[in-house]
Amino acid sequence: MPATEGSDESLVRGSVKKKILPDLETFVQGILAGDIVLLSRAITLIESTLPSHQELAEAILEKCLPHSGKSVRVGITGIPGVGKSSFIETFGNHLIDKGRKIAVLTIDPSSQLSKGSILGDKTRMETLSRKKEAFIRPSPSGDSLGGVARKTRETIFLCEAAGFDTILVETVGVGQSETAVYSMVDIFLLLLIAGAGDELQGIKRGIMEMADLIAITKADGENTMRANRAKSETISAVHFLPSHESGMKTEVRTCSAHTGEGISEIWSEIQTFISAIKETGYLDKKRKEQAKHWLHESVQAMLLDDFHSKLGEEFEKEEDRVVQGLSGSYQAARKLVQSYKKTDTIR
Amino acid sequence: MPATEGSDESLVRGSVKKKILPDLETFVQGILAGDIVLLSRAITLIESTLPSHQELAEAILEKCLPHSGKSVRVGITGIPGVGKSSFIETFGNHLIDKGRKIAVLTIDPSSQLSKGSILGDKTRMETLSRKKEAFIRPSPSGDSLGGVARKTRETIFLCEAAGFDTILVETVGVGQSETAVYSMVDIFLLLLIAGAGDELQGIKRGIMEMADLIAITKADGENTMRANRAKSETISAVHFLPSHESGMKTEVRTCSAHTGEGISEIWSEIQTFISAIKETGYLDKKRKEQAKHWLHESVQAMLLDDFHSKLGEEFEKEEDRVVQGLSGSYQAARKLVQSYKKTDTIR
Repeated sequence: MPATEGSDESLVRGSVKKKILPDLETFVQGILAGDIVLLSRAITLIESTLPSHQELAEAILEKCLPHSGKSVRVGITGIPGVGKSSFIETFGNHLIDKGRKIAVLTIDPSSQLSKGSILGDKTRMETLSRKKEAFIRPSPSGDSLGGVARKTRETIFLCEAAGFDTILVETVGVGQSETAVYSMVDIFLLLLIAGAGDELQGIKRGIMEMADLIAITKADGENTMRANRAKSETISAVHFLPSHESGMKTEVRTCSAHTGEGISEIWSEIQTFISAIKETGYLDKKRKEQAKHWLHESVQAMLLDDFHSKLGEEFEKEEDRVVQGLSGSYQAARKLVQSYKKTDTIR
Repeated sequence: MPATEGSDESLVRGSVKKKILPDLETFVQGILAGDIVLLSRAITLIESTLPSHQELAEAILEKCLPHSGKSVRVGITGIPGVGKSSFIETFGNHLIDKGRKIAVLTIDPSSQLSKGSILGDKTRMETLSRKKEAFIRPSPSGDSLGGVARKTRETIFLCEAAGFDTILVETVGVGQSETAVYSMVDIFLLLLIAGAGDELQGIKRGIMEMADLIAITKADGENTMRANRAKSETISAVHFLPSHESGMKTEVRTCSAHTGEGISEIWSEIQTFISAIKETGYLDKKRKEQAKHWLHESVQAMLLDDFHSKLGEEFEKEEDRVVQGLSGSYQAARKLVQSYKKTDTIR
């Protein structure tokens, strides 16, 4: 697969060779048949800012939606250095050995700066990226976490329609991206590393509360004992957290991406968890709530984007008045919303 | 002061006696002269949902804004049971003895249920509520935290215009109301109680990170030693937190609302803090950023309120389609925003 496959460059700028955009039916049939090239190009359409691309992307998504939803969606988080890429490499290969097809997606809002996520870099998941049962896609870029997350969520649906039955959504483990991932997955896996100050890794930011499953990484060699101690400490810490709406208890495991120790147990835990919440009806409830949540998020993002794109200068003027204490925030907001309502409709 | 003074009932329903609404100039002159009855009634206008009241409230606020901003705004939080009311009672009386005029406001989003905040209840601050140098106002009710917070923030400006030089904004200490208070005060004081499981009181929810100053309450009698130990532990915990943008270090103190021990030291700490951030220019920067934040919040709230009030039924229909997987969140959002843009403008 060439390095530029599915990248914006090949599709939008066409500086090397202008590709002809397939039509809707070609895209949909291709994706449903598991065509990776068409899947990649459809995702690029989702990520594109060109209105014509967005329109086509929405049409593709609408046709693929009825074929989506059949995967296990796993969120994976942990601070930088915890070994997320190594974990996903080993874990992904294990899943493929079990006969599964996996898609690895990333949410990294900082990728707006670097134009492409370092975490999604295929060179960091070398053996996995060479397998046809794995589809690795770096984080979309975007000017807001909401936008980045929305694109990733839509990519999940396309990957599912293309036959991937396990979706791993990785976050960078800093900032607010965990909440975004949490709102699009079935199970949330927190990776911790022994001895890095547990309170700084998760408890403090409330991420531990979100975790359905916790794995202490790098439990190998002389680090094994420390990992086991961290496991015990984490089990104690988990007791203090409020119970999950799922009714499930947060399990804690150790694992090593290097030796493979504990990796199959983590997959077993995930399967047990998914079976249980399927049975109680919680999975269905959760996915429905997530869909509602994203509708609300999308409305909000779209309204605010449209508002700012149409009122750019007027907004800045009012903002200055508010900062100088010449106008109240609420009064200024009313004036701006009134102006906004007079602007053209959106596409 | 009769119990219904400034309440919606006396103003809106007029079931007991219909009061004639003073005009804009009367309100403004009265507030600037420190007239508590007119201040109360103006706040009631801010809280009212009647368009005519809102319009008058906005006009009053606009006229008062240039006279606001001269107070010290203190946010106070802590879990239920930490003794917030007792602390404010003792602390407030101490400030009055020092010659200050204090307004006590509350943000309690749950008051939408109880129609009036139990925390703002004057019977819980008995001696304070009888003093003319103190103005105590319970939490406004509202259907969203954003709405409740916005009203409280506007109330701050009116109280300042009326000559109150110290504003205490109390939160219920559960949920998200801390963030709202944080975005409207100059200094954020976290009250902790010894032995109640510190991690559950603050660290876990990231509230400790927001605190500029921490006080361990109920440091009296046989509890003194426990409070001192909690103080040491808290000092250690604070070391692990990221440093404040203010450049200031989080101080930790003990106090007793019962004996008054430590109360004057807390006020000294607040004064030191405020002087320091005035000198560095951080206070000015912070207030400007808060004003911007509230403009953004207000725009967002107003757009979404207007959107939902105009699209109620259509929104529910689309939501159902999204939940059933018949439509994507983004596509549905686009359709809804298109419909919304065609609706009438706002007042």
